[in-house]
Amino acid sequence: MATSNSALHQKLSDIAQLKSALAVLMYDREVFMPSKGSAPRADMLSFLAGELHERVVAPDFIALVGDAKAAADAKRLPADESAIARELFRDVSRERKLPVEFVRELTHVTSEAYHVWMGARKKKDFSAYAPTLERIVALKRREAELVGYKKTPYDALLDVYEPYATTGEIDAVLTDLRNFLVPFLAKIRASRAGVSAAPIAGNYDVEKQKAFCALIVRQIGFDFEAGRLDVSAHPFSTGFHPRDVRITTRYNPKEVGESISGAIHEAGHAMYEQGLPAERFGTPLGEAVSLGIHESQSRMWENMVGRSLPFWTYFYPLLQKEFPAPLVAVSLDVFYRAMNVVRPSLIRVEADEVTYNLHVILRFEIERALIEGSLGVADLPRIWNAKMKELLGVDVPDDGVGVLQDVHWSGGAIGYFPTYSLGNLYSAQFFAAARRDLPDMDAQMARGEFGGLLGWLREKIHVHGRFYSAQELVQRATGEKLNIRHYADYISKKYGAIYELP
Amino acid sequence: MATSNSALHQKLSDIAQLKSALAVLMYDREVFMPSKGSAPRADMLSFLAGELHERVVAPDFIALVGDAKAAADAKRLPADESAIARELFRDVSRERKLPVEFVRELTHVTSEAYHVWMGARKKKDFSAYAPTLERIVALKRREAELVGYKKTPYDALLDVYEPYATTGEIDAVLTDLRNFLVPFLAKIRASRAGVSAAPIAGNYDVEKQKAFCALIVRQIGFDFEAGRLDVSAHPFSTGFHPRDVRITTRYNPKEVGESISGAIHEAGHAMYEQGLPAERFGTPLGEAVSLGIHESQSRMWENMVGRSLPFWTYFYPLLQKEFPAPLVAVSLDVFYRAMNVVRPSLIRVEADEVTYNLHVILRFEIERALIEGSLGVADLPRIWNAKMKELLGVDVPDDGVGVLQDVHWSGGAIGYFPTYSLGNLYSAQFFAAARRDLPDMDAQMARGEFGGLLGWLREKIHVHGRFYSAQELVQRATGEKLNIRHYADYISKKYGAIYELP
Repeated sequence: MATSNSALHQKLSDIAQLKSALAVLMYDREVFMPSKGSAPRADMLSFLAGELHERVVAPDFIALVGDAKAAADAKRLPADESAIARELFRDVSRERKLPVEFVRELTHVTSEAYHVWMGARKKKDFSAYAPTLERIVALKRREAELVGYKKTPYDALLDVYEPYATTGEIDAVLTDLRNFLVPFLAKIRASRAGVSAAPIAGNYDVEKQKAFCALIVRQIGFDFEAGRLDVSAHPFSTGFHPRDVRITTRYNPKEVGESISGAIHEAGHAMYEQGLPAERFGTPLGEAVSLGIHESQSRMWENMVGRSLPFWTYFYPLLQKEFPAPLVAVSLDVFYRAMNVVRPSLIRVEADEVTYNLHVILRFEIERALIEGSLGVADLPRIWNAKMKELLGVDVPDDGVGVLQDVHWSGGAIGYFPTYSLGNLYSAQFFAAARRDLPDMDAQMARGEFGGLLGWLREKIHVHGRFYSAQELVQRATGEKLNIRHYADYISKKYGAIYELP
Repeated sequence: MATSNSALHQKLSDIAQLKSALAVLMYDREVFMPSKGSAPRADMLSFLAGELHERVVAPDFIALVGDAKAAADAKRLPADESAIARELFRDVSRERKLPVEFVRELTHVTSEAYHVWMGARKKKDFSAYAPTLERIVALKRREAELVGYKKTPYDALLDVYEPYATTGEIDAVLTDLRNFLVPFLAKIRASRAGVSAAPIAGNYDVEKQKAFCALIVRQIGFDFEAGRLDVSAHPFSTGFHPRDVRITTRYNPKEVGESISGAIHEAGHAMYEQGLPAERFGTPLGEAVSLGIHESQSRMWENMVGRSLPFWTYFYPLLQKEFPAPLVAVSLDVFYRAMNVVRPSLIRVEADEVTYNLHVILRFEIERALIEGSLGVADLPRIWNAKMKELLGVDVPDDGVGVLQDVHWSGGAIGYFPTYSLGNLYSAQFFAAARRDLPDMDAQMARGEFGGLLGWLREKIHVHGRFYSAQELVQRATGEKLNIRHYADYISKKYGAIYELP
């Protein structure tokens, strides 16, 4: 057993090196690479991706995983090795159910679909994209059949992004969330509090913004000796190893909130990666547990911390000092409100905290219906626009800012969207538990001290990797199953105050 | 034949992807990587280097190279495939003569030697390094015996860096060079022209220096759509592909010459890489022909262009505008002289154009004697210091700035140094030929036009890859064998004028 286990770990290490090398090459592509480097870089990535794929599907690797799983089932492994075997077996089993021709077809269709989607969005013409999306939906329904499921084919797709979660559970919390948010948004829309971002409009020197973003993410706990903050067209984060995690944001010279939110959001992801146990690198115990939990870290730091009054109590005087021109006469309270304007809008990625989840719920309802076969692709724009009106009260002028706005479906990522809202719900539940365990937390933050919260997250979430499922992790850290109570409390209190709701 | 040839090209392509990926990872390590990323990056590099090595020594790859060579010898291949086969066979044959235990021992000794050398240099204590250097010299003598040679074991080592060159040829030109330089330097030392860098001393804002370096390298022809200019502790260049070539320089806020020279030097290397035929990528026809020819490109742009009067006729007014504080009252002539001060000094990498080759000749004479067995490691400091006095008139205060200054020998790079001087000699011979073919060249440069020279280099050198040997390339481009006449002419005229020699 020892020999086959060490053989397994050697193979995991090789796979990890290839994944990390690919991540460095992709980071360089997004952040540093000159334009003409694109074609040779694609060749490089495709070669290494091939090397990686070969190793992941190699019969001897799969056999070693099978051996480990058998040993785990026979209780012949210590708990950590047993969890590694369980998670690897889970990953490998799904892969094995997909015939190589199916994988090839999906890869081919989705890589072409990216360009088709881009073109259709540009022309605001859904019909140019519909045939391609139909092929993708058909392939994803086929994937669900190949993988298998208990209740709905959507289960099989969701599982890639949020392992062990079921459509039923997700549907229950998202229905609760919808039932809370729609009437709450109506109250905000009726408010006459006059919350506005206008007072902070002005010019914000980009070099100063860069320095300020670096200052913030350093202070909240992003380790610059184990990471970098760079610039890219769309903010993102990526980890090569817990000791080398890269993040980006983007800078708008007319606005300071965008760069700061982007940097904090990505730092939230990155601090999770930096907190994964380095000695488990390459195994499931060194990996993030789910997209929902990953997003809970980014959203918590971005919103519950980075848009909070305690946070800005500390940082706002520093920000004012850097940008006296727009901010000298703006009070903390006015600034705080300006950073928390709620306004229903067309685009998910630009949405505020309150309306964001409604965008997600819309997509969940639509993609689930597509996969279950109760909605056809041709009906998408009509249903999209009707739901935008129903949930957000917004009229969609064209499909470019409507059903065509997201890249996800073109890449075959169906089942991904709900993890954004799960992230918000997890984050509120974790945050409430952290505050319960750290009664002084708000005061700490108002003094610029974030180590209390980060330490809590490290201990309760980061160090465990995939040892527990997301569901178990939430139960252990908070004492409850996932539910919307903490999120609804948080939103009601915060926005009730800002919008002076009755 | 077609099948085995396409199998060979497939393997070459895989090898090229791995080499390029390694180059990206090393570039990121030097330029961007945070400090804690060091250990995981070493693991990543070592994994990929292992993958690369396996492919290079794989029996089926070697067999395909053998087949191609046989086909080439039987005149069954077109000229380009025949040259590819010839060069691959050359590379592979050398590798095959080195037993795996030998390669492992050399790798082990040299990787430890780096730290030993660093420590000894820091303590200025040659004796701490001597036993390690003795092991390296013994291994390199063994390598020469394993590889084989006609006249001197030094031939076998030189051949790695300057293929097809012999010690006899190098010795002949370097002896000519020594015989020219030593008396010429004496004349300069006797000059009372009062050439000095003092007039341009001052403060040079680093951000402005960055912009100026970018402006210069863009103007001389470095393609920023196929490359980047970044910052690192020691300037270097690296190519992942002709469409993605990265260079760095370093910035000294007290001095402007260092960053500019570094950037132009590396851009010279990079424009060679950008000029290699992309359609030959992965084959010897897509590779630089030798280190000497590579260095001829960097040294030509750095010195013959970047320290010339026509160059600064164009750029100096722009530089004055950027840095009025130190430069407003400094005339072009005074600036030009300040950029071309000759002063014998201890450190090779800081040496001026005239004394630089004397540093190289000293190293060539010493390392050749070490390999031929006529000099023992224990005698090195004494011989080094005596030669410094003889060639440069300089007294060496300690071994840290003497025999311990260079990293090369610790890495097993014996036979490398002469390529620096070959680069200077090639560069002068190429430059004279380019001027012969482009009579208007100086006037073009004084107008900021460098496309004439770059076009000449592209056509005569870059596009050929390793199709011709360096020796053939020089003969075809200039009509002569390598000789020192053009270099001596260039140095005599330029420095005769600057130092007002009789």
